[in-house]
Amino acid sequence: MKKYSEMSREELLALKKELDQQYAEVKAQGLSLDMSRGKPGTDQLDLSMGMMEVLANHADLKCETGVDCRNYGVIDGIPEAKRLLGAMSEVDPEHIIIYGNSSLNVMFDTVARSMTHGVMGHTPWCKLDKVKFLCPVPGYDRHFKITEFFGIEMINVPMTPTGPDMDMVEKLVSEDDAIKGIWCVPKYSNPQGITYSKETVERFARLKPAAPDFRIYWDNAYSIHHLYEDNQDFLVEILGECAKAGNADIVYKFTSTSKVSFPGSGIAAVAASKANLEDFRKYMQIQTIGHDKLNQLRHVRFFKDLDGLHAHMRKHAELLRPKFEMVVDTLEKELGGLGIGEWTKPHGGYFISFEAMDGCAKAVVAKAKEAGVVMTGAGATYPYGKDPKDSNIRIAPTYPTLEELEKATEIFVLCVKLTSVEKLLAE
Amino acid sequence: MKKYSEMSREELLALKKELDQQYAEVKAQGLSLDMSRGKPGTDQLDLSMGMMEVLANHADLKCETGVDCRNYGVIDGIPEAKRLLGAMSEVDPEHIIIYGNSSLNVMFDTVARSMTHGVMGHTPWCKLDKVKFLCPVPGYDRHFKITEFFGIEMINVPMTPTGPDMDMVEKLVSEDDAIKGIWCVPKYSNPQGITYSKETVERFARLKPAAPDFRIYWDNAYSIHHLYEDNQDFLVEILGECAKAGNADIVYKFTSTSKVSFPGSGIAAVAASKANLEDFRKYMQIQTIGHDKLNQLRHVRFFKDLDGLHAHMRKHAELLRPKFEMVVDTLEKELGGLGIGEWTKPHGGYFISFEAMDGCAKAVVAKAKEAGVVMTGAGATYPYGKDPKDSNIRIAPTYPTLEELEKATEIFVLCVKLTSVEKLLAE
Repeated sequence: MKKYSEMSREELLALKKELDQQYAEVKAQGLSLDMSRGKPGTDQLDLSMGMMEVLANHADLKCETGVDCRNYGVIDGIPEAKRLLGAMSEVDPEHIIIYGNSSLNVMFDTVARSMTHGVMGHTPWCKLDKVKFLCPVPGYDRHFKITEFFGIEMINVPMTPTGPDMDMVEKLVSEDDAIKGIWCVPKYSNPQGITYSKETVERFARLKPAAPDFRIYWDNAYSIHHLYEDNQDFLVEILGECAKAGNADIVYKFTSTSKVSFPGSGIAAVAASKANLEDFRKYMQIQTIGHDKLNQLRHVRFFKDLDGLHAHMRKHAELLRPKFEMVVDTLEKELGGLGIGEWTKPHGGYFISFEAMDGCAKAVVAKAKEAGVVMTGAGATYPYGKDPKDSNIRIAPTYPTLEELEKATEIFVLCVKLTSVEKLLAE
Repeated sequence: MKKYSEMSREELLALKKELDQQYAEVKAQGLSLDMSRGKPGTDQLDLSMGMMEVLANHADLKCETGVDCRNYGVIDGIPEAKRLLGAMSEVDPEHIIIYGNSSLNVMFDTVARSMTHGVMGHTPWCKLDKVKFLCPVPGYDRHFKITEFFGIEMINVPMTPTGPDMDMVEKLVSEDDAIKGIWCVPKYSNPQGITYSKETVERFARLKPAAPDFRIYWDNAYSIHHLYEDNQDFLVEILGECAKAGNADIVYKFTSTSKVSFPGSGIAAVAASKANLEDFRKYMQIQTIGHDKLNQLRHVRFFKDLDGLHAHMRKHAELLRPKFEMVVDTLEKELGGLGIGEWTKPHGGYFISFEAMDGCAKAVVAKAKEAGVVMTGAGATYPYGKDPKDSNIRIAPTYPTLEELEKATEIFVLCVKLTSVEKLLAE
């Protein structure tokens, strides 16, 4: 394979002609394919259908302390749900609060609470002139939208293969007390599938922020979402690491079963120090009379324990592995050696991250759309939707069927090629 | 019956001796009874057990527009749930947003949103020196706790048999632009069981508040919670009334199925003008990826339509009627004509409100507790927990069995008598 950048103008023009024709043919097919969202496939949802039955037939609906889960009571989670999500989060149940159906909602409410009531007695952020968050990029668009919504200034921190650039993180948080938080997806990160290294986690735990109310928003969304039994990433448990470093209050760890059971009908949890959890509880005991305990019970009865969760996740992996491998193989086969893109090969999570040539991401996504393939909007992985290099594209291979995904990936690589040729010709 | 106030000191002393002895006997029984909370009884929860089965056996889990309710998507409610809760709220589905498991949570978030983002483009309340809410009293403690939590000053407005004192409401809201809201439970109010009259609703709809971001928080928690088929209260639908008055944006109407299906596992909704709903949506689309659609589907499949809801509520009424009637009959039999208390006789809802002699509520509740009967804390029905006359006691007859309730009511009337005698003797 010859690198596109080493091709002569004539070679590029010839190539463009060929690609244009392929593209015209694809467009003529009038396809409608979707690689845009981290949604489980229908086959994955089918794995949890037993949950629809598990409380039926006059099952005992009391939790293990005898509370009737059909009635009011138990504000922060039934004990067995705390144990299950505690195991999933690798912390003691006493460090867990169970929430409703969405960990994103918990994160949003945590920022909202910090705005109006401050963090553990510190000045409410809405009383400050300036509040800033660090945003490892590329990252999760919904995180960035929360901080944007509250008028919080976002500062990009580049991701590396071992996590965010920790030199930069350490420097910024130690110098600027307006920096109140950092968004992290530490395992199988969205969108790159990177797992933070041991050193990265240790450096997070030992941060010395200028702001006493600085918190790490540790969104462990993909903690057990492996693709390979024998090729898993391992993430150091951060709560313990922070406690060891005398920094127990610096982190909030979020998790949910959204991509274990059902998106939108799962259960969410936060794990944190007892002092932080008190802060959460003060808010939630005014905010709600309690979350859905029947759904908590439904999850516990269905998954039973951590072994049950892992067994279930292996079934997800069996369905997802061929999709991820097909995409990565196609990228390798079609784009390998051309010098017009790089991509990640994650061991878990929901995404593959693609780096196009600078200035090409928007054009690739637009071309794909024109040919009937919806990708995540270019720029979405950056705060304010602004990818400074216009190069990152998030590929979400989970929702389409394998057949649809094959077609979509073919079209995607075609759009990458065509856009790259056009870019080089325009230079 | 002789009024206590007309008794001589000797008569009161003789009576006290007798009551003291009865009280000692009751205490010796070491009872443990609970009349404190508006919780459905176990028999009521059993009415909805069919919901545990309704999505089982590989039921079709798509909503009527074909969206798979097990996956992400549909932020503001599946159409059939909007229709069901729209019918329950007497508004078109297009004026409805479906939320999670708790309408209290929606109210809290509405205040939180107003604090940080303001109401329909107006100044966020956190930027104002002073924000005030009107609180019809006695009222619902959890409403008052929300406004207290956000540092909002609460102003008591007396309840009358037709709703809040509207002369006072009209005067205050027209004069003071710091007044941003009023808490209302307009039907079978908590705790008095009062339903606002037609005139009251019309006056609410025609309010001319000084603050353009003033909103009526219309918590229609007991809209279909009748005790009698043939003796129902009727409440004028306020959204329509406000629209007619050219005041469409002045009201938020909240509802939920907490006391229809399962407390904590129901579905909640808000009904409001389209402009207001846009405000809600802007917030919720950042706050969450969506609420639990499977639970929405579960409710629709189980209740089907408004007729189904009404039929179900008649079953609740059959279980609750004997409890309410027994309490009211006992109060009448034991306290009628004694001039030491007054009480309401609601046609629906979850509470009976008792007015003891001034300065006696705390003592009655303390005495009942000593004898093993837990009542709602005296003062809870007032902002800041401060009942200025120390007279209101909320009776919650729903949770205990009829037998327990009989015993608890006997003890309650005994405590009222004893406290009243002591009060008169001390004067």
